[in-house]
Amino acid sequence: MTTVHESRRAALAALLAEHDARAMLVTRAVNVRYLTGLVSSNAAVLVRDDGPPVLATDSRYTEKARGVCDGVEVIERRDVTSALVRLADRPGVEAHDMSVAEYRRLGGDLPLLGRLVERLRVVKDESEIAALRTACELTDRAFAGVVATIAPGMTERQVARALEARMAELGADGPAFDTIVASGPNGAVPHHSPGGRPIERGDLVTMDFGALYDGYHADMTRTVAVGAPSGWQRELYDLVLAAQRAGRHALAPGAGTDEVDAAARTLIEEAGHGEHFGHGLGHGVGLEIHEDPFLRSAGAGRLEDRVPITVEPGVYLPGRGGVRIEDTLVTRAGGPELLTRTTKELLVL
Amino acid sequence: MTTVHESRRAALAALLAEHDARAMLVTRAVNVRYLTGLVSSNAAVLVRDDGPPVLATDSRYTEKARGVCDGVEVIERRDVTSALVRLADRPGVEAHDMSVAEYRRLGGDLPLLGRLVERLRVVKDESEIAALRTACELTDRAFAGVVATIAPGMTERQVARALEARMAELGADGPAFDTIVASGPNGAVPHHSPGGRPIERGDLVTMDFGALYDGYHADMTRTVAVGAPSGWQRELYDLVLAAQRAGRHALAPGAGTDEVDAAARTLIEEAGHGEHFGHGLGHGVGLEIHEDPFLRSAGAGRLEDRVPITVEPGVYLPGRGGVRIEDTLVTRAGGPELLTRTTKELLVL
Repeated sequence: MTTVHESRRAALAALLAEHDARAMLVTRAVNVRYLTGLVSSNAAVLVRDDGPPVLATDSRYTEKARGVCDGVEVIERRDVTSALVRLADRPGVEAHDMSVAEYRRLGGDLPLLGRLVERLRVVKDESEIAALRTACELTDRAFAGVVATIAPGMTERQVARALEARMAELGADGPAFDTIVASGPNGAVPHHSPGGRPIERGDLVTMDFGALYDGYHADMTRTVAVGAPSGWQRELYDLVLAAQRAGRHALAPGAGTDEVDAAARTLIEEAGHGEHFGHGLGHGVGLEIHEDPFLRSAGAGRLEDRVPITVEPGVYLPGRGGVRIEDTLVTRAGGPELLTRTTKELLVL
Repeated sequence: MTTVHESRRAALAALLAEHDARAMLVTRAVNVRYLTGLVSSNAAVLVRDDGPPVLATDSRYTEKARGVCDGVEVIERRDVTSALVRLADRPGVEAHDMSVAEYRRLGGDLPLLGRLVERLRVVKDESEIAALRTACELTDRAFAGVVATIAPGMTERQVARALEARMAELGADGPAFDTIVASGPNGAVPHHSPGGRPIERGDLVTMDFGALYDGYHADMTRTVAVGAPSGWQRELYDLVLAAQRAGRHALAPGAGTDEVDAAARTLIEEAGHGEHFGHGLGHGVGLEIHEDPFLRSAGAGRLEDRVPITVEPGVYLPGRGGVRIEDTLVTRAGGPELLTRTTKELLVL
């Protein structure tokens, strides 16, 4: 039986042939994991057309590697790249990953290959989507468990810790990224680090967080109101919600990544807030929290089928606050599958 | 008043002068944080001798950057390196961080500088040590809270989650790294990922974990016995403990990193277990969980004063299990300061 990792290596070998390359030295940890199943901070794998793949790692990981890596020869070496380079005739390297120093150490003349493994990783198989679905479900459940406990006087940090603790209790392997909780004026900072500010009545509170499950990263943002929202808060929320809906509806295999971005961005621009939405509309998720494809105004890519991706417009008003609403979805021929299912009605606590 | 970040940039400028460099483009996220205080996944800082430092980051981080980065000009740009390179005459780059692809994109001819910021980061100031002390205290307290709950039938994963949840409750910003809980035969895998194996009476259980606090990483390992230890378990434990003590006692400003490694390793080799201790004795900790200096058999560095470092010998018997004991300490002229204070007596649960 062909394992999922063998299939992926076969797909890479086909891509290599298209690039007239006979071997590739894969050094990026997340790509090594994708191709072999091994999670290690010091490993590399050589994929070649004239022999079995070889993985090098140090003694901390060799026993694990031998258990995990079906159909891969495992060698124990601290200097993983030097050992593997010798086993092929000038293998290509991951130019976006390998440092200049390392490249020179290996001779400075190996062919430079691009993001080939990343390209393979864009379209997920159903086992990957299942892991992401679980990650998103844990995220939803953690939100449901914590949101009712949010009250004036709680600090941003306390809310963030509560979300993370609840995800862990529910079975997450950890948070998928540093949890953002931004209250009141801090909501104007898209990547605010939760701090000691106590939440006040009258605040909007933006929570951007997600669960990590079996290597896959969920990503969800909800903004809630503490106490009845004022006019501008409700208006801003409705605008971002409409933009988010437009973005979600534009998600389809074949759609341009810039078109999806524009579907949401146009609404925000028409409302006069174009300059207050300074980031892209969304990004792929998988073994990384941010990965290809990216939904941006510049960019000419097209979406494929079975691509997990976020849609997350936001409007940020310096000194006042902000709103962001984000889901993780998967592109499907019949319309996107929504993985984060928490309501997007404005919750008033 | 000179801020800590200004002092660090001044120290870097002095190092640059030693390397006949007039400017440096710092791209490694942890180094950008060290020099400016900004935590960002897309930022770079230009340090130069003919003008103030300039930090470039994208719109997600600019407001935060302007709040955090005293004495630094902040510019908003998604492509952070291109923007900064233009502001100096051929600034040096971090050759160990910049990818080959990025280096070529910037012209392929910028001077290659090495790990200058990492070199500065080796010796910590007292504010850094204080953060690390807190991180280690949270680690100790989490261990104390969880160890008494470990019982046959609990899975490794449950123990790992309990440690992480307890650290978060106590105020940690998160785990400093992926928690290791390895029971019974899994103890033979130094970097075992905690799984569904239920702990059994007669197991040794190794827990390697730590708290992250204000950017600083604690690292501690304890091995406990579930039920009365057998003869070989007790013997192995006593051996590793003696080696760990020898390693700790060898820590001193001026000591060779290989000498400290040898102080512990010799005992293990003399007991016939040299081949079962396949990793280095320890590593620096700080803004990274593994950073300079490294305690290894090969290596010619010397320790300085005020260097936080781990001492963590282990013996791993394939198929049977293992023991590792690890503390985080700080080198001091008068003898090392022990930051992780949990007892190293063999706890029998």
